[in-house]
Order: sequence, then C-alpha cells, then structure tokens
Amino acid sequence: MVIDVLVDRIIELKNPTVVGLDPRFDILPKFLCDEMTAAYGETPKAAAEAFYEFNRRIIDNIFDIVPAVKPQIAMYEQYGADGIAAYQRTIAYAKGKGMLVIGDVKRGDIASTASAYSDGHIGEVTIGSAPHTMYGTDFITINPYLGYDAVEPFLDNCKRYGKGLFVLVKTSNASADVQDLITERGPVYEVVAKLVGEWGAGLIGRHGYSSVCAVVGATHPDQARRIREILPHAFFLVPGYGSQGGRAEDLAACFDKKGLGVVVNNSRGIIFAYRDKYKDYGEAGFDAAARQACIDMRGDLQRVM
Amino acid sequence: MVIDVLVDRIIELKNPTVVGLDPRFDILPKFLCDEMTAAYGETPKAAAEAFYEFNRRIIDNIFDIVPAVKPQIAMYEQYGADGIAAYQRTIAYAKGKGMLVIGDVKRGDIASTASAYSDGHIGEVTIGSAPHTMYGTDFITINPYLGYDAVEPFLDNCKRYGKGLFVLVKTSNASADVQDLITERGPVYEVVAKLVGEWGAGLIGRHGYSSVCAVVGATHPDQARRIREILPHAFFLVPGYGSQGGRAEDLAACFDKKGLGVVVNNSRGIIFAYRDKYKDYGEAGFDAAARQACIDMRGDLQRVM
Repeated sequence: MVIDVLVDRIIELKNPTVVGLDPRFDILPKFLCDEMTAAYGETPKAAAEAFYEFNRRIIDNIFDIVPAVKPQIAMYEQYGADGIAAYQRTIAYAKGKGMLVIGDVKRGDIASTASAYSDGHIGEVTIGSAPHTMYGTDFITINPYLGYDAVEPFLDNCKRYGKGLFVLVKTSNASADVQDLITERGPVYEVVAKLVGEWGAGLIGRHGYSSVCAVVGATHPDQARRIREILPHAFFLVPGYGSQGGRAEDLAACFDKKGLGVVVNNSRGIIFAYRDKYKDYGEAGFDAAARQACIDMRGDLQRVM
Repeated sequence: MVIDVLVDRIIELKNPTVVGLDPRFDILPKFLCDEMTAAYGETPKAAAEAFYEFNRRIIDNIFDIVPAVKPQIAMYEQYGADGIAAYQRTIAYAKGKGMLVIGDVKRGDIASTASAYSDGHIGEVTIGSAPHTMYGTDFITINPYLGYDAVEPFLDNCKRYGKGLFVLVKTSNASADVQDLITERGPVYEVVAKLVGEWGAGLIGRHGYSSVCAVVGATHPDQARRIREILPHAFFLVPGYGSQGGRAEDLAACFDKKGLGVVVNNSRGIIFAYRDKYKDYGEAGFDAAARQACIDMRGDLQRVM
C-alpha cells in the first residue's frame, strides 16, 4: 500500500518533508528564463520548459534526503497544454529518482466527472485497447465539498492501483467562512475529519495508517490537536511550514505518539531558498540552496517528531 | 459585464440552455475514433483530436440556437497535455462562433494558488513582457470550501477582465455529507448562498444580475426555492436536466419572477442524443441529432420560464 511506502521512506530518511514544486516564472532564476525564452520566445512553452528544468535540478539535489515532492498543478495548468506537459514530465522525473509524488490538484466533482479525474491522475485511461498512465501520481489532494459519492471514484482507484489521497479537512488560509461553520455535529472540519476516517477504513496499511490522509493546516495547532484525536491513525499533509507562517513547534500537535503521522510541505522556503535565507548560493546555486534548506528543515522537524 | 451578455443572448434566443461538452472516447461515434486512431494510434492525442472534432461539429450545429457551452475540463484533463490542448481549442472555437463558454473546472485553493488558476482560466499570464490568454473562458465554476480569501483572486479577475463565476452552492449528486450539514446559521448550502450574494455584490450588471452566479442542482426543488429566496438576483447554473433525473417542472423553483435567472445544463442528453432518443439520426448524424435535442429542450424549458 502506498502509505506504507511513504512511511518506510520517512523512517529511512528520518525526514517527513514534502517539497512543493510550485515554480513561478516571474521569480525563477533569470538565466533559466533567458535560456528558454531565447529558444522558444516569450511563450507558454518557454515557461513550461523553464519549470521542468528548474524542477529537474531541484529533484537531482534532494531525492536522496526527501521522501516526496508535491507539484501544485495550478502553477502548470495556468500555461495550458505546455504547462500540463511540464507537470507530467516533472512527475515522471521525480518517480524515476525514487521519490513519491503528491499531485496537489484539489479536484472534486460529481461521480462521473470524478471518475475522469481519478483515472487520469491516479489510474489509467484506455484508448481503444491501449491503457495509458497519464499523470502517475502516487497521491492526490481532493476537495470533500461534494460528499461521498464524489470521493468514491478516487477510493476505487486507490484500491485498484495502490494509490492514496489527501482530503482537504482544514486548510492553512485565513478564511474560515465554510470550514469553521459550527454544525449540529461540531465544526465542519471535524465532521469532514470523521468522514475521512470512514472513507479510509478499507485502506489501512501494515504500519496502521490509511492511504486516505488529511490536509491539516499548521496555522491552527488547537484544531490540529482536535483532528488528531478524531483521526489517530491518519497521515496529515501539513502545509504552512515556513512561508505561510507555521513553525515546527506548531506541528507538535499533528504528530502521533510514534512521532509519525505527518508530512510537512514547504514550497517557497525550499525551491526559492536562494532568494531569501540562502542568498549566498546565488541564483546559479538555486539547487544547492534547496538541498541545504531541506537539510536544515529536516533538523528543525526532528526536534519535534 | 459578462452576465449582461449572457442575459441578452438568453432573451434573444429565448433559450437558457447550456450544452455540456463532456465527450467520452468510449461512446463517441465510432467513425471519429477510428479516423483519429488511424492517424495517431491508440494515443491520448487521438482521443484529444476526436474530442475536438466532435465538439466542433456539435458547435457548428447549435451556435445559432444555444447561448453557451460548458466543457467539463476533467474529460480533457484525463488525457494530459493533449487533452488540455483540445479543451483550449474547443473554447476558442465556440467563442469564434459567438457562444459564451463556461469552463467547468470547480477549482479552489489558497489565494496564491487560486491566482494562478484565475489568471490561467479567466485572466492572462505574462511571460517576460508578453501577456497570453490561455483558456479564455467567459465564466468558470469554483468550489467555495476554502472561503473568501480563496475566492478573491477570481473576483479580482472578474472585475479586471469582465468575467464571471458559478460558485458551487448545492450540487446535483446524492451525497449530502457536507453541503447539507445543519449549522447555527442554517444548512451549509444556505450559508454558502449568502456568501455568494456578498461576493457578487460588486459585480451587478445592467439587468440587475451579478456576474457571480451559483451552481444549484435541479434534483432538489425545495432547496432551489430556498436558495432563490436568499439570492433573488443571482443566476443559477442548474445541472441535472435530463440524464441526471431533473425535469423542466423541477426547474420552476429556480426561475425568478421575470422568468430568467437560470441557465440549464444538459450534456449527455444533447451530445449523445443520437445514442438515445434520437437514434434515427444515426451515428453519422450525431450533430444534427444534437441540434434537434436542443430545439426540443428549448421548447420544454419555454413551458416553465
């Protein structure tokens, strides 16, 4: 089961970090942008090629110390078909280097549509008699607003293809308009947490964790504590470390008694490390800066695991 | 404002139909699939080309009697970059024929990510000094689960680029796990309906409707009536007509006192009409069957408008 592969790798590397591969053309190293616009003009293709090359060099520098990457599809999708091609190639490259890949797609739709998303992202599509793996991500994030029947096609493919999900339970942004509404059965996010527990009951691996996991923002430690009570055996994907204001101390509430149960995402703090705390590496050393930022983050997390 | 363009067109054509362009390779006319697999093999490219050709012929046959189409991006996205290219080309073709296009993407993410989705789907991306319109949809559907700050980047582009949104309020599927939860302020979907009213207050057009609209499933007429009370001046996108079990009578609750305020989506009932009630047209006449199905649906809707 894919959750076991993730747990094994976290234990092996003593590192629960996920690196968010969320490139932005306007702040990418200038030499990369220049190279690609020289080759392709100021086109979506240039942006897509720059993203892939940027990701490739980051992955080359972190694959042996970080268990997983999480490309945010929006960053690629905004550049149309070329961007999506870069997203697909990035996933393939990371997997080729032995990394697990969490596709941050946050999809959610009625069942027949969810099936298409599910087959594309964590399953197979068939054209005539030929099956094709289109994205090949190990996990994807999904949105629970449409309820169980919209989640079922994803659960089916988790079973069939050995894949996993991270269901949005409590996000790291400030707006609490919907997730924090108080219902007859507790806040919406607590009800969703309970649903995640039910949905994942049939997908428990040998470490005791389910392949159906939860997205839980680190910016709300009290809420994280409550969700941990509801989901003692679930893995949490915690965004918000570093640039979204979350600190390692805030994560303590997320970890379980074994010091596990969490993957911590850091995007800008790693991939754009050379623009901030790791300026000494210079633009040309963006990939080495990313590696050092991962090493330092690993140390920070080990204090609270 | 884009909502005014939509209202004008609905009045002009006496037709609030939206045709869902949700092709499925396994049930597309065989001659189209054969043609494309002969040219491209059993590849994602073949599926994408078949989709575009299918859509093009449907659009050619309906553009003068139907105001808008709604491609469901999942159907394209599942085939990777080739599929997304077909989605982009379909939008461009429909717009070239004077149709409005609602991109059914149901995106939702934290603000910085939502900005990327928003710029891609209803705005522009800039590469170096060159702005590019990547998808060019007039409206998109979005998911409200992440709350206001995740919606704001879409509202910004609605103002800047004259675009519109359909926010998921109550979907047409059976699972009510989240949307029907009873909160201190009523069911979740009613709270979301109120938020949609607030979010759209700055985008009211000359017909009195906002460019921020709501997705309201026709399978729940009592709930539709309540949402209409909360949002007297909002347009509803109503899925579920025809194949999802909704009937014209059930739509009566959605229309406002002027007999407007609604666009009714039909996907399979139109694009796959030749497989069902309009078999006489045969596979080769799939596009003419779609036109006749649109004419009949228009008549049906005019009874309750």
